[in-house]
Amino acid sequence: MTKIATIGCGLIGQGWATVFAQAGFDVVMYDISPEAAEHALSAMEKRVADLVAFDLISPSDAPAILNRLTVVTSLEEALQGVVYIQESGPERIEIKREITERLDALAAPDVPIGSSTSGISASRYCEDIVGRHRCLVVHPINPPHLIPAVEIVPTPWTDDNIMSTTKNLMQTCGRETIVLSKEIDGFVVNRLQGALLEEAFKLVGSGIVSGADLDKAICDGLGLRWSFMGPMQTIHLNAPEGVEQYVERYGTMYRDFGLGSYDEVDWKEVVESALKVQLETLIPVADIPTKQAERDRKLMALLRHKAREQSEHRSGPNTPPE
Amino acid sequence: MTKIATIGCGLIGQGWATVFAQAGFDVVMYDISPEAAEHALSAMEKRVADLVAFDLISPSDAPAILNRLTVVTSLEEALQGVVYIQESGPERIEIKREITERLDALAAPDVPIGSSTSGISASRYCEDIVGRHRCLVVHPINPPHLIPAVEIVPTPWTDDNIMSTTKNLMQTCGRETIVLSKEIDGFVVNRLQGALLEEAFKLVGSGIVSGADLDKAICDGLGLRWSFMGPMQTIHLNAPEGVEQYVERYGTMYRDFGLGSYDEVDWKEVVESALKVQLETLIPVADIPTKQAERDRKLMALLRHKAREQSEHRSGPNTPPE
Repeated sequence: MTKIATIGCGLIGQGWATVFAQAGFDVVMYDISPEAAEHALSAMEKRVADLVAFDLISPSDAPAILNRLTVVTSLEEALQGVVYIQESGPERIEIKREITERLDALAAPDVPIGSSTSGISASRYCEDIVGRHRCLVVHPINPPHLIPAVEIVPTPWTDDNIMSTTKNLMQTCGRETIVLSKEIDGFVVNRLQGALLEEAFKLVGSGIVSGADLDKAICDGLGLRWSFMGPMQTIHLNAPEGVEQYVERYGTMYRDFGLGSYDEVDWKEVVESALKVQLETLIPVADIPTKQAERDRKLMALLRHKAREQSEHRSGPNTPPE
Repeated sequence: MTKIATIGCGLIGQGWATVFAQAGFDVVMYDISPEAAEHALSAMEKRVADLVAFDLISPSDAPAILNRLTVVTSLEEALQGVVYIQESGPERIEIKREITERLDALAAPDVPIGSSTSGISASRYCEDIVGRHRCLVVHPINPPHLIPAVEIVPTPWTDDNIMSTTKNLMQTCGRETIVLSKEIDGFVVNRLQGALLEEAFKLVGSGIVSGADLDKAICDGLGLRWSFMGPMQTIHLNAPEGVEQYVERYGTMYRDFGLGSYDEVDWKEVVESALKVQLETLIPVADIPTKQAERDRKLMALLRHKAREQSEHRSGPNTPPE
């Protein structure tokens, strides 16, 4: 059996433990507070039961998944024989440094030490750690057991092997990996969210639209497609000849909105230097009509799903939410 | 029976005709090219059949919906007795001005003339039109019959009555209305999309992440929640005491990303002046735990939907997509 240690048993640590156990790993859970660890273990029964209720775990697998979880009170014991360590401690640099130093001292060489941090680049706490080559950020989106996307971010010292081992492990666990080539504040997910929020705050703050109406632009608009197709593929499919033509047609329009620091980046240059090849490798221009039809079918299936959800919600028993 | 005219029979006009006919309106379709109009009518049979296939129209309603569609070759005839006009002509100011002038001259007084334009504020073509008080933008997201969100944008001269009549009509047609208080380039939807794309182009252009991986940040990450909950409600639920606390906790982090023109807008001020009251009216702080649980259930239901879609796609007959 292959073993993974999750260090820190808060909501994020619990989510990770679910992910690893679901993928068939033995999971050793450690928290500096033994009570927190014990509490986590019982909270996870509820979590697994929820996943069973939504057909995301089969009922016959549930007992085995829960059996793979162990709580230990000694860090030494937690790290024995593990192939990977996921640290989900508090978001403070000094604490991250202290925990990571201990993990590095106790774990076998070349076991990756991934941190769940959403806001601290690993280089800020691991520079002076002996095994800094095996430290990196492996950032989930909350709740980790429900959202598949995971950001993998190297420090300047992270080994390529550590990066690829971690990426493979995450993919084995059904995670959708977003690999960054280097550190940047906020990584990718929170930068994208921040850019959208920044414009949202501007529009609401200037009184042009209410927060409630702005939300509809996403949850009844752009967010429908975005739940199964990212923004880059979306624009690639929104012009008959793909992303290059899209930017030719609409690039000036977007620039004229005066959004953020638009002038800092030339969309056309990005298309030519990288994006065109990347997107056409995924979706050749000749396949665009097929993919457009697929997109519209997925959209209709999503609308059917949302309509059924709503009618079940309306017609369901009037019990208070859990 | 109540009648609506759709002017211009391209994809957008066809989408609108579907929306109006589905809501029970008689729809008169006009295009300057009679061939285009005839083509549209037959294309719509396919469109309605697709909606039936996905349970979005009941099979017994389909014939009546198609029967409500008429193509006419005279604009005078098209406008006779209509309660609303949706113009979906080419995206050029001179053409918009010419069409709108004719529509205004022929239609009964106080019938709203909504334009589907995604990029042209109506004031740029209707200032000198007699009935400019009834001109406005009613901007759908493509395809209009699948995406519920619609932006309603007044010119400086649009009557309040025209705004409210149009909003009510759109809601009758099952549209989710985003009402702007005044014109702004790109309205709301495309500004939000543009802000996210701007950051995306920056990240891909600097080589930090590939376009394919960036897409996962949305379609396997943020976009999952956004398909049923907008970005403002999302952050309201991401702190125990709501949006005010969220901005206290994370506002500085986002500011430090140096996104766009962050310094131009003070998130805290927007929260205090408008957003806090707006969001707490929708979701009082006391309801946040309940709403968080509901969010996680919706997320699990969405994941189940996506998993089923994928397994149906894999196990389905190997026919080429339509």
